[in-house]
Amino acid sequence: MKILVVNPNTTSKMTEKILESARKFAFPGTTISASNPIVGPESIQGYYDAAVCVPQIIELIKQEKDFDAVVISCFDDTGLDAIRCITDKPVIGIGEAAAIYAGRLACSFAIITTLSRSVPGIESNIYKYGLGSICKKVVASGIPVLELEKMDPVALDRINVTIHQLIRNFDIEAIVLGCAGMVDLANKLSREHNIPVIEGIGCGITLAQSMVKIGAKTSKSGGYAQPFKF
Amino acid sequence: MKILVVNPNTTSKMTEKILESARKFAFPGTTISASNPIVGPESIQGYYDAAVCVPQIIELIKQEKDFDAVVISCFDDTGLDAIRCITDKPVIGIGEAAAIYAGRLACSFAIITTLSRSVPGIESNIYKYGLGSICKKVVASGIPVLELEKMDPVALDRINVTIHQLIRNFDIEAIVLGCAGMVDLANKLSREHNIPVIEGIGCGITLAQSMVKIGAKTSKSGGYAQPFKF
Amino acid sequence: MKILVVNPNTTSKMTEKILESARKFAFPGTTISASNPIVGPESIQGYYDAAVCVPQIIELIKQEKDFDAVVISCFDDTGLDAIRCITDKPVIGIGEAAAIYAGRLACSFAIITTLSRSVPGIESNIYKYGLGSICKKVVASGIPVLELEKMDPVALDRINVTIHQLIRNFDIEAIVLGCAGMVDLANKLSREHNIPVIEGIGCGITLAQSMVKIGAKTSKSGGYAQPFKF
Amino acid sequence: MKILVVNPNTTSKMTEKILESARKFAFPGTTISASNPIVGPESIQGYYDAAVCVPQIIELIKQEKDFDAVVISCFDDTGLDAIRCITDKPVIGIGEAAAIYAGRLACSFAIITTLSRSVPGIESNIYKYGLGSICKKVVASGIPVLELEKMDPVALDRINVTIHQLIRNFDIEAIVLGCAGMVDLANKLSREHNIPVIEGIGCGITLAQSMVKIGAKTSKSGGYAQPFKF
Amino acid sequence: MKILVVNPNTTSKMTEKILESARKFAFPGTTISASNPIVGPESIQGYYDAAVCVPQIIELIKQEKDFDAVVISCFDDTGLDAIRCITDKPVIGIGEAAAIYAGRLACSFAIITTLSRSVPGIESNIYKYGLGSICKKVVASGIPVLELEKMDPVALDRINVTIHQLIRNFDIEAIVLGCAGMVDLANKLSREHNIPVIEGIGCGITLAQSMVKIGAKTSKSGGYAQPFKF
Amino acid sequence: MKILVVNPNTTSKMTEKILESARKFAFPGTTISASNPIVGPESIQGYYDAAVCVPQIIELIKQEKDFDAVVISCFDDTGLDAIRCITDKPVIGIGEAAAIYAGRLACSFAIITTLSRSVPGIESNIYKYGLGSICKKVVASGIPVLELEKMDPVALDRINVTIHQLIRNFDIEAIVLGCAGMVDLANKLSREHNIPVIEGIGCGITLAQSMVKIGAKTSKSGGYAQPFKF
Repeated sequence: MKILVVNPNTTSKMTEKILESARKFAFPGTTISASNPIVGPESIQGYYDAAVCVPQIIELIKQEKDFDAVVISCFDDTGLDAIRCITDKPVIGIGEAAAIYAGRLACSFAIITTLSRSVPGIESNIYKYGLGSICKKVVASGIPVLELEKMDPVALDRINVTIHQLIRNFDIEAIVLGCAGMVDLANKLSREHNIPVIEGIGCGITLAQSMVKIGAKTSKSGGYAQPFKF
Repeated sequence: MKILVVNPNTTSKMTEKILESARKFAFPGTTISASNPIVGPESIQGYYDAAVCVPQIIELIKQEKDFDAVVISCFDDTGLDAIRCITDKPVIGIGEAAAIYAGRLACSFAIITTLSRSVPGIESNIYKYGLGSICKKVVASGIPVLELEKMDPVALDRINVTIHQLIRNFDIEAIVLGCAGMVDLANKLSREHNIPVIEGIGCGITLAQSMVKIGAKTSKSGGYAQPFKF
Repeated sequence: MKILVVNPNTTSKMTEKILESARKFAFPGTTISASNPIVGPESIQGYYDAAVCVPQIIELIKQEKDFDAVVISCFDDTGLDAIRCITDKPVIGIGEAAAIYAGRLACSFAIITTLSRSVPGIESNIYKYGLGSICKKVVASGIPVLELEKMDPVALDRINVTIHQLIRNFDIEAIVLGCAGMVDLANKLSREHNIPVIEGIGCGITLAQSMVKIGAKTSKSGGYAQPFKF
Repeated sequence: MKILVVNPNTTSKMTEKILESARKFAFPGTTISASNPIVGPESIQGYYDAAVCVPQIIELIKQEKDFDAVVISCFDDTGLDAIRCITDKPVIGIGEAAAIYAGRLACSFAIITTLSRSVPGIESNIYKYGLGSICKKVVASGIPVLELEKMDPVALDRINVTIHQLIRNFDIEAIVLGCAGMVDLANKLSREHNIPVIEGIGCGITLAQSMVKIGAKTSKSGGYAQPFKF
Repeated sequence: MKILVVNPNTTSKMTEKILESARKFAFPGTTISASNPIVGPESIQGYYDAAVCVPQIIELIKQEKDFDAVVISCFDDTGLDAIRCITDKPVIGIGEAAAIYAGRLACSFAIITTLSRSVPGIESNIYKYGLGSICKKVVASGIPVLELEKMDPVALDRINVTIHQLIRNFDIEAIVLGCAGMVDLANKLSREHNIPVIEGIGCGITLAQSMVKIGAKTSKSGGYAQPFKF
Repeated sequence: MKILVVNPNTTSKMTEKILESARKFAFPGTTISASNPIVGPESIQGYYDAAVCVPQIIELIKQEKDFDAVVISCFDDTGLDAIRCITDKPVIGIGEAAAIYAGRLACSFAIITTLSRSVPGIESNIYKYGLGSICKKVVASGIPVLELEKMDPVALDRINVTIHQLIRNFDIEAIVLGCAGMVDLANKLSREHNIPVIEGIGCGITLAQSMVKIGAKTSKSGGYAQPFKF
């Protein structure tokens, strides 16, 4: 099967990194490709960035014809509902996938994202997905998306301190890293803090393959009906 | 004060009708103008239409410089969160405004919208705004937005039957007309069914003026922070 | 139009101050009058005070015949449901109005009220109105209603510290001042903390005018039906 | 121990009937007395009636000095929060008691009350008590409180039909009779429909005795703190 | 009437202590007996312990024939739904009983339980019972169940500190002791902290007697229907 | 990888059928085995059946040493929380998996299960998982688990009628078959009704493989901590 990963931002270096990570989660026989819009924000941080890149993502997906499922590789699940309208193939966001997986591994989890402006959109998604009782906190690390690329010790330290506080003060049993740029950190942090630390790419890529495997199709009745003109 | 009404769809005849209605709700000293994107969907019906027109709306608002508040005149509050990021002036959606007003007039209300594809987005908004316990139903009349322009007797009859059933079977105490195209129907239906029937334009226009009157500004801290580049 | 403001407590000096503030929020052509019961509690602090003054408020409103809308100027929206039964004119509480406005300006807000005994009633209202996901905190400043009149530096300082902590520890994006006695503080605090600080009088007065403007009537079917005898 | 039953309405014949029923639920050693205000509504039907009788109830309870717990014998739990402020003895509403008991006997229940105007207040209580997921429906029989006294066959038939529909269409597993006037019907209806049918007097009287037995006191910290003047 | 108390764990000394406490809450004419499984966990701490002892509890109850109600004396209400299937007599858990009573005495309460592994099960129950808005916190004291038997000063001190913090930082108005082993502490802690401190045995025993008094039967329609084979 | 499927009931013919279905959903390199307890209920219908088989399931899993993930193949996710305590390998219930997949394919779905006694447990799970806003209905077909094996035309017809009504009356966009015995029906029903019809085995098996693929481990901190003795 073929999985199309869409990085909603225009930073192609990040797309490459995401693709590299994504391929580690391919089951035998799965081909994964990744793509990003050419115009639009360099990183998706908050409601504005998320809104302006959606038409570009839709165009990109329309041009790609040969895929069995789509994975939106930004933690705010950019444009998820709209994209589900244009195809009956499964469309998965890495944010929803990671939150779902975390809820299977622990009785409570917290999400650590980048900047405070990204928190309300993620909280709103969690609330909409109905995971509010399991996801106890969505916190901002204060590190912008593109800084995560460089991963200097100071940034890493701030994330470590945040995880430590979440475990100690809020009895958090698992952590979700709320940014595609944090993909390489999960295993290391999990070992250090001795609780599951989940990142979204692996969750999204495997959930998408799973849905293809069972032959799942997006409903074309109601909210995800095919648009009249597109 | 100056209120800018944005009709998210490209049907300028509808924009004119909306502007005409909106002006009836201007307090003395208020100037109202209305605008719509030039490219994009003719009507906003469901998640796809809503997503693709947001960047156009944002461009349109950026070009307009002289306004004190913005009203988004589509019942799904198209792009509301993203638009709040680009200005500190109040931004109001007619969907949220109508649902808020209805909740002040009755202990339970229902929303009648156009097609079934528009229902989940509105339900999702209502749920997000937290009005789920007062808004008991969101139902589709089955009449597309642009058909509402012509308002033939068959369409009107279907809306009447729907209201009748909502009152009888679900003890609904007030009705919200969930489409800007229904603006002219509210008073007539209210008289006929003897309960409040609310449409969104009046609610949105007056709420926007109210927020300007108290000097309200959109928070630039957190979710509605100014985008880094725009 | 004519707006009747009802101060539920018997402190007429407070009624005068409320009226003075309220008039700043009158649209051209609006007349505002204010009234308070002659017997009853001097300030409304908690469930007991709120309950005992309601029949007095109802009597007061019955005697006033000439109004287009009523504003209840106490943050716990004293007697709101009962008062809506006795008139088909819009009835607005300053608590609900302020919480609604704050939810249009920010993704999260907190309410600062007077004493801890007032917190549960306000929380309960917020929960009933469905704004629990946006209103993250209701906190008591520890300053009684009538002390707010005098506004000594110590009291002001305590409110400043509380706002500072809410922003820093809970990512609060806007503040609602949960007492009619705090009406003069909003602008000053907003400038100092650089986020929206909302007080209820302006919100209630403008929302009431807005509802009159659209010709809104309280439903007389169901929960707000006219009492059999009154 | 001594239980004081307060019938919030002024119909003394109803108070007598309530007292007679209440005494059947006294544990050995318990004395039960009942009282009602002298002025006020003849029956409590909706928000207005409930609000105007609360100060009278409070006066009545202040005059009675010798009791160990108070039971408010109207299904809308008239004035419950305010009354809890004036005593540290347990105060129980028959509405809350019946809903709590029903939730221990069945996975889902419905409440049948009198008129549609009483539904929102009860729904609002159920929502506040947090029983919304177990209480699937609150329905009006259309029979006013005082008609229930006479219990003609037509009224009884309407209640029977309502119960039948609730079981058949909504998988309701237990019924709560939402009016003190229905106290004599519970056993008969339970036998006929072969599911638990609960009335509130028995629940309220026994719960009150239980709370006295364990020495429970109402918290005087926070929402139920003693009023400053009363 | 006869109340059967089931201690889900195999520590018979704890059963004796529970029985001794339970008898203090018997109304005249009530006989209370207590029993525990012979094989199974020594204490119920978390999901695993709770699950493995349920079939033993069911066997134990099947053998006892002569009872009018069952009280499950472990704060996680071990096996409550399953046990309700095998009898039409009322079955009450001490966890649900205590949470219900606390919600009648205060506008907010917190539960203090033993170890962190017990917190999610209790939170999940509270959420299921619908008491989430009143129960603000479920916290672990860190003291295992069987250590509570010995009640050394260090353990007691830790509980005192926890209560103090809950009152100061979270405006908690009442405390529920979330373990049958804490039964003797309630009165002492209540006096010291000057707010209601509730333990579950008294609540469960009195609620069970109350339900017998009104002749309540568990519904045999739907979720608690009699098993096909048992 | 090796997936262990546990059928909680003792009907080995059903285990074989489940295994056969499960194997269709194995990614290359995955081995699937299935097992069931030898003593216990023949089918899991309601709370009692679910409770009594859990210790048997736990024993069965303890004996199996060689697996990478466990799938509980009963729609009520029998013993899920307890089983997660005894291993750090992922443990997935087919009920949770199916509900999660359905929520990715449609804006609303309904679950059709066997008997009315199974409905509350499933509803309670859905509520606990937080999917209540997407899962609009849980309905009983009235066909017992073991009758589904034979799948006579009458039973099939009843399911068809139920799906038809759910689509027509409640705007349901996808269906979840709430019983492992319905595994063969999904594709056929999906074609006939032209909306996604999901069964749990495929969802559970693929989700389990996905979680193994990303190296996910169950948290051993908090609610799923390893039992002290087991």
